[in-house]
Amino acid sequence: MNYQRILNEIYEEIKTIDYKGEVANYIPELSLVSKDNFAIVLRTIDNRVYCVGDSEKQFSTQSISKLFTLTMALNIEGKNIWKRVGKEPSGTAFNSLVQLESENGVPRNPFINSGALVVSDVIVSEFEDGKKCLLEFTRKLANSENVNFDEKVAESEAKTGYRNIALANFIKDFDNLDNEPEDVLDFYFNQCSIMMSCEELTTAFMFLANQGYNPVTAKRVTTESKTKRLNSILLTCGTYDAAGDFAFKVGLPSKSGVGGGIVAVMPQKFVISVWSPGLDKHGNSLLGLKALELFTEKTDISIF
Amino acid sequence: MNYQRILNEIYEEIKTIDYKGEVANYIPELSLVSKDNFAIVLRTIDNRVYCVGDSEKQFSTQSISKLFTLTMALNIEGKNIWKRVGKEPSGTAFNSLVQLESENGVPRNPFINSGALVVSDVIVSEFEDGKKCLLEFTRKLANSENVNFDEKVAESEAKTGYRNIALANFIKDFDNLDNEPEDVLDFYFNQCSIMMSCEELTTAFMFLANQGYNPVTAKRVTTESKTKRLNSILLTCGTYDAAGDFAFKVGLPSKSGVGGGIVAVMPQKFVISVWSPGLDKHGNSLLGLKALELFTEKTDISIF
Amino acid sequence: MNYQRILNEIYEEIKTIDYKGEVANYIPELSLVSKDNFAIVLRTIDNRVYCVGDSEKQFSTQSISKLFTLTMALNIEGKNIWKRVGKEPSGTAFNSLVQLESENGVPRNPFINSGALVVSDVIVSEFEDGKKCLLEFTRKLANSENVNFDEKVAESEAKTGYRNIALANFIKDFDNLDNEPEDVLDFYFNQCSIMMSCEELTTAFMFLANQGYNPVTAKRVTTESKTKRLNSILLTCGTYDAAGDFAFKVGLPSKSGVGGGIVAVMPQKFVISVWSPGLDKHGNSLLGLKALELFTEKTDISIF
Amino acid sequence: MNYQRILNEIYEEIKTIDYKGEVANYIPELSLVSKDNFAIVLRTIDNRVYCVGDSEKQFSTQSISKLFTLTMALNIEGKNIWKRVGKEPSGTAFNSLVQLESENGVPRNPFINSGALVVSDVIVSEFEDGKKCLLEFTRKLANSENVNFDEKVAESEAKTGYRNIALANFIKDFDNLDNEPEDVLDFYFNQCSIMMSCEELTTAFMFLANQGYNPVTAKRVTTESKTKRLNSILLTCGTYDAAGDFAFKVGLPSKSGVGGGIVAVMPQKFVISVWSPGLDKHGNSLLGLKALELFTEKTDISIF
Repeated sequence: MNYQRILNEIYEEIKTIDYKGEVANYIPELSLVSKDNFAIVLRTIDNRVYCVGDSEKQFSTQSISKLFTLTMALNIEGKNIWKRVGKEPSGTAFNSLVQLESENGVPRNPFINSGALVVSDVIVSEFEDGKKCLLEFTRKLANSENVNFDEKVAESEAKTGYRNIALANFIKDFDNLDNEPEDVLDFYFNQCSIMMSCEELTTAFMFLANQGYNPVTAKRVTTESKTKRLNSILLTCGTYDAAGDFAFKVGLPSKSGVGGGIVAVMPQKFVISVWSPGLDKHGNSLLGLKALELFTEKTDISIF
Repeated sequence: MNYQRILNEIYEEIKTIDYKGEVANYIPELSLVSKDNFAIVLRTIDNRVYCVGDSEKQFSTQSISKLFTLTMALNIEGKNIWKRVGKEPSGTAFNSLVQLESENGVPRNPFINSGALVVSDVIVSEFEDGKKCLLEFTRKLANSENVNFDEKVAESEAKTGYRNIALANFIKDFDNLDNEPEDVLDFYFNQCSIMMSCEELTTAFMFLANQGYNPVTAKRVTTESKTKRLNSILLTCGTYDAAGDFAFKVGLPSKSGVGGGIVAVMPQKFVISVWSPGLDKHGNSLLGLKALELFTEKTDISIF
Repeated sequence: MNYQRILNEIYEEIKTIDYKGEVANYIPELSLVSKDNFAIVLRTIDNRVYCVGDSEKQFSTQSISKLFTLTMALNIEGKNIWKRVGKEPSGTAFNSLVQLESENGVPRNPFINSGALVVSDVIVSEFEDGKKCLLEFTRKLANSENVNFDEKVAESEAKTGYRNIALANFIKDFDNLDNEPEDVLDFYFNQCSIMMSCEELTTAFMFLANQGYNPVTAKRVTTESKTKRLNSILLTCGTYDAAGDFAFKVGLPSKSGVGGGIVAVMPQKFVISVWSPGLDKHGNSLLGLKALELFTEKTDISIF
Repeated sequence: MNYQRILNEIYEEIKTIDYKGEVANYIPELSLVSKDNFAIVLRTIDNRVYCVGDSEKQFSTQSISKLFTLTMALNIEGKNIWKRVGKEPSGTAFNSLVQLESENGVPRNPFINSGALVVSDVIVSEFEDGKKCLLEFTRKLANSENVNFDEKVAESEAKTGYRNIALANFIKDFDNLDNEPEDVLDFYFNQCSIMMSCEELTTAFMFLANQGYNPVTAKRVTTESKTKRLNSILLTCGTYDAAGDFAFKVGLPSKSGVGGGIVAVMPQKFVISVWSPGLDKHGNSLLGLKALELFTEKTDISIF
């Protein structure tokens, strides 16, 4: 399949769309990013790379980085992690407290904020310096030393992240955090602030398309079995409460973030990342989702 | 892959398990079925068939038949159906009314009872005799004239189905049924009572593994695009509120019913049906799920 | 206190208000009633009666009649009734199903629709002809042979009362109805259709102001202790999910109905009934509530 | 009525009850209080005082003190306060977050924890040193200089009060706190720690029985109208999610706290306070409630 031609076509079509959604505005750093940014990168497991747009420009990965911490936590805890966090779609918004209350502080899945806080707690418990370890892990995945936290973003989130502070304290009240909420939150806000480009993100997700082995760095990241589990959770829970619709329209395990990035995995074949900072009402990149839908239409590729 | 050997192995392992779950007991007809029944049928798109156990014995398909009515309704309404029913996992039990109330009578997906009632309403509106049309459609899919309603089951459900009556009237109150609740319920209770064997179910689902074209009957059932959509909804919503866990453990689009049947689809490859009447707490066949997990383990096959 | 002068003043003030709320329109019979109707009747326990407006004109009592059936059921069952229905404010709308689901079919209180259905079930079980008994009981309370069901209203509600049918079937599913839903609903729809004037309603509630003894008919209706209990439930639950606000503004145990009537009780002193068919968003009579607020302001009378 | 004889009788009966409920154990300071403590104080508006038991022994007022801050806030804000907090019964537990989420951060009433936090915010905004002002206000109400915070209790709550921290941050996220959550929480934890005896509590509530004027200190506390409003909120919301049952059994506006105190008001007549540290499942004093029920039975006094 001529992927470069397809990406070019998508790029041309996307350019003609006027309404690009709304940039996340709850912290100043995110709201300043121009909606005109756009990138797609596709990388196959046999190491061919196709790009359009701002493919090397970094942006705030936000929730996409939850996949990295979940992978770390799974490697640490194995199956035990599922005692503390579920793997079912949430059916409610990503930062809802309602479900937590009725289910005794066990978050529905690791990709809603509450679940990511429990995952963060695992890493904070395991390592002397969890943030440093996360950065090292992510750099290796992405094969890039340029992956860093954006301290301004992390600080902004810490200052205004009342709902996440509420979530962490609520979970702690249910005894499902081992560390103090402020330590878990410090890790979490930094995790969300990781800056990466579509190129780096694509490389970092390659192990998910290749049975746990990263073909770029020639390193095993996790087992084949865990890789399948991660892909299934991405499909059913990776795009907030729109996961069903996403599976319906795109048909690939995907993870999105409010920085406007989306990464999708076609097992045994490739990873594709898109970036467009404007969001739809679910918090997913509006044009990013559109681009992935076009890709599905043009290629007929999906796991279904 | 030597499917017959694998099915044999699974059969041997399943036989050694003492606890078989609990047979559905809300109507006498279901509670009378012996837990010792067990069957697996696997059929590939190139028409090889592998069986173990009671593969020709019919049982109550119950919720599995919701896939047939959804396919009919999709062919009738196209995309418009998604205005009246969602395609997101429900996050609550299959017969819950809570979500309906907060979302104005639009069921979360077509596989929870409320969603299936809306789908039934489409068919009742379209055809003079909806039940007859459903039977004809299902017989063609299954390539079998032996597919019938079990009138005793349908009558029992009508007599004791207070919750489904509540659901239908509740949806009607929100103006999301065109017909009177009793007419929709009559269709629905009959639909649930359809009797089929694992062999018939497998054949009836073959079009989902083959881009909408049934290789057994050499008939197109629906478009390629709709087939992918159906598979994605099966994956995210096909097994009640355990869909996430099911995707995690089995990794195939699947539909289960409280009669103890489960049908799973591996796109471009095969359909596999299992039957064991004992249920787990989610209403899925306990040993059926176990059998599918063993199959996944032994074959490493999943869409992820 | 010069009650007649006060009622006159209120009447004059109410007349100047243009916006009268919206008449209930879910059944034709209610929507046809003119918003210009207005009445107040106040009767003291020493049998002085004060009126303004259409005090002898009958209207649909709707939920107000729930007080009559509750009194009957309390006399039949005593404390046992509280095993099947709570006495806590509901916190949600009067016809909500959500609370029922989380609390296993036990309605929060006897004045929301679900609770009134359970109360109806008690009466349907007790009497050969529950409807006839209710009519006799209410006629005695009101000291009037003119109290009757409005069959058109009852039929209309039966035809369009999908939500109440849903509620009854839902409660039956939780095994909290002894009779078939349709029999309970038939009683319930008739109960709601009882036609009474403000004069009749006032007389019928007099026992609540007089420790269980009706001073007009010189008959004991229920015990002193049960009378206090009824008043406390009226205060905390009598005006749907606005009970707190109502207690705050009016400060008297009260029962309202979507026919536009409100009856309020000042223990040891009097009963006051108002009627104005236009409703506010909670389903309480807009000008009726206003009239009672003015009464409270002018007289400084409240139980607090 | 011979109140002293009645209190003596109640005391004797209560003494014979073995099961005294469970002392609050979420902070060490509360769990150390002996269940054998017991006191009743009744004070009439014409200044007769009747006591039994440990009537001068101080205990942690906890939620009872919410009445003092609400009175202060009402005097500051007047009706405007009801834009930020409701006056409806909550229908859910006192520390629930669910209702906040569905109602955009506006707590149901000022006596659940979330509502008390909003009330605290009003006082923190108004005064340079809110805690000092609260202490002064309460000392005047109670006519006692011995009223103080228990710093150990306040510190313990601050250290372990994850759920209250969650509530404050959640409300802040909805923009319904003007101050930072930690400042509001500091005030709130101190408020809950106020130590008072039944004698002091009774005196402090006297204005509620006397149209806003404290007959002991000969000072007006608030207007007659606000007094009635406070009593109505006490009745409908003062005893957590058992308010309906409390009104049913006791029939007096009341406020309880997890320190085991309950204060009840009979307008125009008296205030009665009870203390017994063991709690029922709703967090109300088990024997305190029993004592008030006995009082109601023996005296036939209630507002109904």
